[in-house]
Amino acid sequence: MARRSVDVPALVESARAGSPRAVARLISLVEDGHDALRDVMAALAPHAGRAWVIGLTGSPGVGKSTTTTALVGAFRQRGLRVGVLAVDPSSPFSGGALLGDRVRMQDHALDPEVYIRSMASRGHLGGLSFTTPQAIRVLDAAGCDVVLVETVGVGQSEVEVAGLADTSVVLLAPGMGDGIQAAKAGILEIGDVFVVNKADRDGADATVRDLRHMISLGDRTEPGLWRPPVVKTVAAERIGVDEVMEALDKHRAFLEESGELRRRRERRAVDEIESIALAALRSRFARVEGHEGVAALAREVLAGRLDPYAAADRLVEHVGA
Amino acid sequence: MARRSVDVPALVESARAGSPRAVARLISLVEDGHDALRDVMAALAPHAGRAWVIGLTGSPGVGKSTTTTALVGAFRQRGLRVGVLAVDPSSPFSGGALLGDRVRMQDHALDPEVYIRSMASRGHLGGLSFTTPQAIRVLDAAGCDVVLVETVGVGQSEVEVAGLADTSVVLLAPGMGDGIQAAKAGILEIGDVFVVNKADRDGADATVRDLRHMISLGDRTEPGLWRPPVVKTVAAERIGVDEVMEALDKHRAFLEESGELRRRRERRAVDEIESIALAALRSRFARVEGHEGVAALAREVLAGRLDPYAAADRLVEHVGA
Repeated sequence: MARRSVDVPALVESARAGSPRAVARLISLVEDGHDALRDVMAALAPHAGRAWVIGLTGSPGVGKSTTTTALVGAFRQRGLRVGVLAVDPSSPFSGGALLGDRVRMQDHALDPEVYIRSMASRGHLGGLSFTTPQAIRVLDAAGCDVVLVETVGVGQSEVEVAGLADTSVVLLAPGMGDGIQAAKAGILEIGDVFVVNKADRDGADATVRDLRHMISLGDRTEPGLWRPPVVKTVAAERIGVDEVMEALDKHRAFLEESGELRRRRERRAVDEIESIALAALRSRFARVEGHEGVAALAREVLAGRLDPYAAADRLVEHVGA
Repeated sequence: MARRSVDVPALVESARAGSPRAVARLISLVEDGHDALRDVMAALAPHAGRAWVIGLTGSPGVGKSTTTTALVGAFRQRGLRVGVLAVDPSSPFSGGALLGDRVRMQDHALDPEVYIRSMASRGHLGGLSFTTPQAIRVLDAAGCDVVLVETVGVGQSEVEVAGLADTSVVLLAPGMGDGIQAAKAGILEIGDVFVVNKADRDGADATVRDLRHMISLGDRTEPGLWRPPVVKTVAAERIGVDEVMEALDKHRAFLEESGELRRRRERRAVDEIESIALAALRSRFARVEGHEGVAALAREVLAGRLDPYAAADRLVEHVGA
């Protein structure tokens, strides 16, 4: 497929000047794994690193988009520029995010200080753990003070995406899963702030109690460490939003005072560098031809003549050459 | 941590002779990423490749464990040896699977021809996409005719785990999500057989209709390709289990006649070899010291002095040495 050439310096300049079209185009380049990405990232690097990245995750139906919309409103009231990435890691094949998120966020669709973008993994190497940090960097370099990353579902990839945030918000709704479900989903470990949304429903207090109990059992209660608060909201009616903002601010202060912000960002940069390096190495696998090519090795493994470790050794030898 | 040494040949022999303890021990080695794994896989390789691997996936609450239990019973009636892997990709941190699955499968807990094992990713390199194929190989080499891999949730990692199966069964329940949800979760693309469980509930027919419609819109309806059937069950009452078995048998026949079985297994072997090779390469990253060490590179990226691609290039140079 021939690719349109890209005037990277002009595009980056437009994005930094606040052009939503330029921002959108840059994120499309990220999604597509475009050849120009390397130049784009080099041009963005000096301008990134300012944005506060907040992840929001939770099962379908807990009200993530409604909560995101409410938070966008609250940050806008502070005069901040806000970016929203609605990430859908559960759809590696569909080649594009569905409409829902964008439609529901139409409150802010016309606000020039709000960038809203749905992203889907297009199945290219590394998936969302590869593209999300790059998309965050685009929004960051474009002057967003806050980037909200909304993820769908509660699988392993969501946990990975949550690892990209400075502050991770986990949303639950009453009756949508007891403490055991939360524990199974691994969300207790990733949440910095827990929000029980739809708190006007039956069982909200029990869910809050359960969560607090589970959190108290976890290993995050040592002195000096952050103890995740649990906040009740009815996001659709903007109830509890101030409390969420307060919890977020406290976490932000904790991140800075404790040095955790620096640690998290360093870990994130390590992951990103390694992901890019691994993708580069992996692309070399496909180029190994003949007897030692990966397809030929796979056939040897299937025939029981080679075990996967020995096959991997041969592949590594070629890549290391 | 000192590791107990392992008598690999004896352990593999015991597992092949049908010792559940030996099988359990081998899977623990897989979960732990034990040093002996390489020898274990080499010893198992000649004996694997016989089992029919069937994946079952779906959201929490659709009745996966009940359905798995019913299928185990049906395969046992045919006199087949059955392995069950209950995989929980949503818990990368908890260091162990919770009890639920095993408890609910107690129907078969005393049957010596049924191996049941819960697995959790312990967060080591590659995660479940790394350990699951190895655990499947253990069960396969131990003489299981069928290996059922049950995954929790519907995130990207579940889609990956589903990619490990010869036949993927997607479970849904009425009212647990409309067609759009299914499409978002990417399950339409991965399902070879769809099961609408709890079909005695309201809305079952609508769910079946929706699914069939969504499937008909997909790109799997070309002549010659498999068109996934939609089967209704009430697994808790063993209703519809024969129909599921019939659909599975048809898919198995399709796999063999079309050559798709071979293609899927080759793709699986490629993925496994690449995962092992990437983990080996990744472990080299951590050993790069000094100025070009990954932590130092991360700090340069955070400071805006280096972009992630340039940092990755330096890392790759070292690994390629």
